[in-house]
Amino acid sequence: MRIKLINPNTTQRMTESMGRCAREVASPGTEIVAVSPTMGPPSIEGYYDEAIASLGMLAEVEAGEREGFDGYVIACFGDPALYAARELARGPVIGIAEAAMHAASVIAPGFSVVTTLARTCGMAWHLAERYGMTRFCMNVRATDVAVLDLDVPGSAARSIIIDECRRALDEDGSDAIVLGCAGMAEFCHEVEDAIGAPVVEGVTAAVKWAEALIALKLHTSKRGDFARPLAKRYDGVLADYSPRDAAAHIHRK
Amino acid sequence: MRIKLINPNTTQRMTESMGRCAREVASPGTEIVAVSPTMGPPSIEGYYDEAIASLGMLAEVEAGEREGFDGYVIACFGDPALYAARELARGPVIGIAEAAMHAASVIAPGFSVVTTLARTCGMAWHLAERYGMTRFCMNVRATDVAVLDLDVPGSAARSIIIDECRRALDEDGSDAIVLGCAGMAEFCHEVEDAIGAPVVEGVTAAVKWAEALIALKLHTSKRGDFARPLAKRYDGVLADYSPRDAAAHIHRK
Amino acid sequence: MRIKLINPNTTQRMTESMGRCAREVASPGTEIVAVSPTMGPPSIEGYYDEAIASLGMLAEVEAGEREGFDGYVIACFGDPALYAARELARGPVIGIAEAAMHAASVIAPGFSVVTTLARTCGMAWHLAERYGMTRFCMNVRATDVAVLDLDVPGSAARSIIIDECRRALDEDGSDAIVLGCAGMAEFCHEVEDAIGAPVVEGVTAAVKWAEALIALKLHTSKRGDFARPLAKRYDGVLADYSPRDAAAHIHRK
Amino acid sequence: MRIKLINPNTTQRMTESMGRCAREVASPGTEIVAVSPTMGPPSIEGYYDEAIASLGMLAEVEAGEREGFDGYVIACFGDPALYAARELARGPVIGIAEAAMHAASVIAPGFSVVTTLARTCGMAWHLAERYGMTRFCMNVRATDVAVLDLDVPGSAARSIIIDECRRALDEDGSDAIVLGCAGMAEFCHEVEDAIGAPVVEGVTAAVKWAEALIALKLHTSKRGDFARPLAKRYDGVLADYSPRDAAAHIHRK
Amino acid sequence: MRIKLINPNTTQRMTESMGRCAREVASPGTEIVAVSPTMGPPSIEGYYDEAIASLGMLAEVEAGEREGFDGYVIACFGDPALYAARELARGPVIGIAEAAMHAASVIAPGFSVVTTLARTCGMAWHLAERYGMTRFCMNVRATDVAVLDLDVPGSAARSIIIDECRRALDEDGSDAIVLGCAGMAEFCHEVEDAIGAPVVEGVTAAVKWAEALIALKLHTSKRGDFARPLAKRYDGVLADYSPRDAAAHIHRK
Amino acid sequence: MRIKLINPNTTQRMTESMGRCAREVASPGTEIVAVSPTMGPPSIEGYYDEAIASLGMLAEVEAGEREGFDGYVIACFGDPALYAARELARGPVIGIAEAAMHAASVIAPGFSVVTTLARTCGMAWHLAERYGMTRFCMNVRATDVAVLDLDVPGSAARSIIIDECRRALDEDGSDAIVLGCAGMAEFCHEVEDAIGAPVVEGVTAAVKWAEALIALKLHTSKRGDFARPLAKRYDGVLADYSPRDAAAHIHRK
Repeated sequence: MRIKLINPNTTQRMTESMGRCAREVASPGTEIVAVSPTMGPPSIEGYYDEAIASLGMLAEVEAGEREGFDGYVIACFGDPALYAARELARGPVIGIAEAAMHAASVIAPGFSVVTTLARTCGMAWHLAERYGMTRFCMNVRATDVAVLDLDVPGSAARSIIIDECRRALDEDGSDAIVLGCAGMAEFCHEVEDAIGAPVVEGVTAAVKWAEALIALKLHTSKRGDFARPLAKRYDGVLADYSPRDAAAHIHRK
Repeated sequence: MRIKLINPNTTQRMTESMGRCAREVASPGTEIVAVSPTMGPPSIEGYYDEAIASLGMLAEVEAGEREGFDGYVIACFGDPALYAARELARGPVIGIAEAAMHAASVIAPGFSVVTTLARTCGMAWHLAERYGMTRFCMNVRATDVAVLDLDVPGSAARSIIIDECRRALDEDGSDAIVLGCAGMAEFCHEVEDAIGAPVVEGVTAAVKWAEALIALKLHTSKRGDFARPLAKRYDGVLADYSPRDAAAHIHRK
Repeated sequence: MRIKLINPNTTQRMTESMGRCAREVASPGTEIVAVSPTMGPPSIEGYYDEAIASLGMLAEVEAGEREGFDGYVIACFGDPALYAARELARGPVIGIAEAAMHAASVIAPGFSVVTTLARTCGMAWHLAERYGMTRFCMNVRATDVAVLDLDVPGSAARSIIIDECRRALDEDGSDAIVLGCAGMAEFCHEVEDAIGAPVVEGVTAAVKWAEALIALKLHTSKRGDFARPLAKRYDGVLADYSPRDAAAHIHRK
Repeated sequence: MRIKLINPNTTQRMTESMGRCAREVASPGTEIVAVSPTMGPPSIEGYYDEAIASLGMLAEVEAGEREGFDGYVIACFGDPALYAARELARGPVIGIAEAAMHAASVIAPGFSVVTTLARTCGMAWHLAERYGMTRFCMNVRATDVAVLDLDVPGSAARSIIIDECRRALDEDGSDAIVLGCAGMAEFCHEVEDAIGAPVVEGVTAAVKWAEALIALKLHTSKRGDFARPLAKRYDGVLADYSPRDAAAHIHRK
Repeated sequence: MRIKLINPNTTQRMTESMGRCAREVASPGTEIVAVSPTMGPPSIEGYYDEAIASLGMLAEVEAGEREGFDGYVIACFGDPALYAARELARGPVIGIAEAAMHAASVIAPGFSVVTTLARTCGMAWHLAERYGMTRFCMNVRATDVAVLDLDVPGSAARSIIIDECRRALDEDGSDAIVLGCAGMAEFCHEVEDAIGAPVVEGVTAAVKWAEALIALKLHTSKRGDFARPLAKRYDGVLADYSPRDAAAHIHRK
Repeated sequence: MRIKLINPNTTQRMTESMGRCAREVASPGTEIVAVSPTMGPPSIEGYYDEAIASLGMLAEVEAGEREGFDGYVIACFGDPALYAARELARGPVIGIAEAAMHAASVIAPGFSVVTTLARTCGMAWHLAERYGMTRFCMNVRATDVAVLDLDVPGSAARSIIIDECRRALDEDGSDAIVLGCAGMAEFCHEVEDAIGAPVVEGVTAAVKWAEALIALKLHTSKRGDFARPLAKRYDGVLADYSPRDAAAHIHRK
């Protein structure tokens, strides 16, 4: 099976790192293609970044449909434009926050999300609600580490994150941690070893969840809200984004 | 005071109609500027349309900040990218679904939303939840009238909508109606007269709500989630959308 | 338009102060008549005070219907007998807690209520729930300032309130403040200047909200729970409170 | 022990009937004193009726404190001014809706409330929420029987109520019925025999619940929201309702 | 009337102590039979203990049906297998957590549960949710006292519990305490005297609640989820637990 | 990796059928061992059946720990004693309702559960709540097919189920189906083909979900509620079920 892993920001070294993490957990028969748009925000740290990044991300999903992918992972912890992506895709589309929260809810009575900037905590709470996970999400904690500082050599990012995870276990009544940024994928086992409790990371969780759904032959339901966008002609410089008929795709394959 | 009314779709005759409705209810000292982007979907009938339309809508908010507007109305019932717009704006930003639901919740114990296509009902439910209005929203009902058919001369749209409103009052335990599409603004009093119960329409409600907040000197809080987007350089063809410092704006004025 | 602002307690100097605040924000064409009953509690600081004060407040609404008011503001943060008042009135009836919470929910992701006595915090939480605002209400904080001490010259009330507002912003994850007592109306801008975040005050918010609904020609729905009380004869000394037919009113005008 | 059963409406024959029902289920050592105010609405069929009736009901609680009652039952299904009554009383104060919903929640996975007029259904839903019973309350159904027609000889009230209870069991997924008006107390066993499922009636349930709390020596907590009203002097014709110190009561006994 | 009080653990001295507490509050005509299984865990301190203890507890209910009991109390704060017990019983079956939470919700705006081991706090929260009591349950606090240490002479258990109750009142915004273990029944009045706020204990509360329901002639509804288990033959060593027809029971009596 | 699939009922032909379905979707390196207890109910159709079946199911988990399994699937749609099983296991333990609801929530905005007997619908709703899935679960529908009739040759079970699934899509606003009984595993694709919308079946979903968690090296958190049961000696015929130290297990391996 072929899974397209879309990093909605433009920072290629993050995309490559995510691709490596994904391939480490993927099953033998799974091909992971990790991409990011060439346009848009280099990091997503608020609602505006997210709204603008959605354009490139959705273009990658639409391209993916022409390329015949079986499923998609949206690799930013805000799960930007997830429902729009589901309208485009035939196969499953998984957000990394969604998969990570599902996974954490199964292995612990409650988890804390440890994320980057304080201004993104509200987004994480919204997602917890959207996925029905508020009853498991005991807290969302910011570290005030900027996304692009996460992998700067010699940065204090890892130790700051580990300290916050420890505080989460001590203070929140949580028994597991969800890492709240795709850029933390490479830290996962290091953090787990340091704190002695399960640490769930969304990129890898979403890849396995997508694999599971594809193996189960489950597709995005095309009956209701996630039906293909109605075919219409968009105006001006966005004309290339006009949704075409699902039939057009099938014909093209 | 000056309020920018942004129709996120590109259909200029809808924008003009909304402008007319807005001006009818605006206070004497209020200037309404009704605009729509020149790029993007001509109508918004799903999550993908909404995600793509956000680009042009947000550009209008950012331009509005340079133009010195006191507040904004997002005139599409999905309230697209409302939080992203709040990050950009100093003054208040109101969604028409938000204002309509607030208003209806004050004049009746419960309301029904009557909207266009069935695939948008889920969006209305999400908004009701986001605004805390699920306890007032008794039902969301689709009429299967397409947005752009609403004002086609001789169309059956109005009588279909009136019939659905009547059913809502009879079957949902609702005592008021919220019209679920900006394109229905011109019908509001006609529907109210026909059904004999209050009918709330979002474009006009949001204009009055924005006026109220501006008169109260209430701005969007810039402390937390709605702080200005972090200044950063976006890549590629989206570089023009890069968020600049709030300071840059103030300087420019 | 004419709006009757009813202070449900008997303290006339509070009524006058509210009237002044209301007129400062009212639109040119709006007449504000601020009244309080001549009987009942001089301040409302619990459920019993509230229940007894409702009698005089409702008498003012019923009188207001005969006097031809277009709408009403109930100016006590417990929004006492709001639904009973809606049964009596044809126009909109707004509670100050209701309007303040709506307004705060639009300009910030979350707010804290800062109120007077600890024993009224539960009332504020009940109202937040009734209006669907629990998702925005991050905390309700008491200052242990008695209502009638708020405007005593030289009292520490203002600095105590400002300190509590600062703590709310620091500790609650709130980005705006709602002042939880009508007696705080005159402090609003002073507190806002001191804390550097939006401060919403209910008397002024409710006046603007009432103006908005009246301008939109929205009335209290008379179909269901808020229909006129059934005409019946009350016994004993309360006979004067007997509800009469709505028709009787219209005739009388 | 002595329990004061307060019918908040002025219809003495209802008070007497409730007293009879209460005495039938009371334990040997329990004295039931059933009273109703001499002023106010003869029946409670909306929020306004309820607000006005609270005055006389609260006077009976305050008198009861002087008379040394051990606990109180508020015998109207809207549980009017229950929290205000708790401020006044040292012993427990139980609403009949509260007791009936608690009891029904223990003997069935879900219940339906069958009540009188449609306009009171919203009140019953509010109470279900206030008591945490929405998860058990499957529906609230009106019969459009007026309260004072319930015991008119030869009326169709009983058969209408029995029919509605049957529909509730068939259509709501309910396995028990809560009768939603104190005036239905005398029908309870007749309805149960007719429909073959448990029928809970609030007057009797509240009496037994009050007995239980009194036997357990549980009093209304006087620490927080239900502390005695602050002593203050009320103005005008309501001066007699001024709350006095709890100490004053104890002294007087 | 005859009430069977079932301690689901095997520690006979706890059973006897509960029996004593129950008899102290029972009405004159009530016979309390306190039993515990001869097999299973000596204390219940987790989900596994609870699942295994359910076997003996359910056997006692089934035996109770043959013995003609009018109702049952499940005397472990986890209310283990409560719904299974309701399937077996004709009369009411009350859990001690259920009765204690109901009682506390009537005498205070909010309560804290003070229990034994931290690992059981999650169970208490689940029960609060199941009974609709989360809106009243302000906190669940562990003392890390093991169940079987509660009544060891000279142990510090009581003073630890009293200290935790005091902290609950100070820090949780609670105005009453629910003791979270059947083994604390004998402390109830001692704790109440020490902290000066109502303390609810489940064994006694459940006995009074059961008495109340029996006096009201209310049975477990046999229409839906709590109908007798379908008659079938269980395999192997559990064959003796095979559910028989309700009819079989009635015949046997 | 090795996954133990535990059918909590004793019907061996169901166990074999589940094993076949599981192996069809399992990854190449996964060994599925499908077992059922030799004691207990042949089918689980209520709370009592479930409570008794838990004994044999938990014995299989405890044995599985000695046998070195990496994870477990509890293959009954009531997910009986899931939390107790998590206390015993080091690896992940997945319930089939849990996995199915998670999967359905990712591919459709809402799903309906189609199950066997009406008396089990309440159980499905409880599980939806426990897993945070009520917002996705639009309805739970019974077919009144008994569990053991599902695979009787020539039975009408399949067509009854397909008809109910069609009604669910038409009437519930659902866009996917969850099959609510492990005994329906073999029907999954047949139903999907018949109704033209995604059909999720829990046995296969849980196997893939367990595989995913094991591949991610995620274990059940042993910090809090799911820590090993406290070591203690159970009494009487249940002594063999006494929980031993986790250390004992590790030693034994």
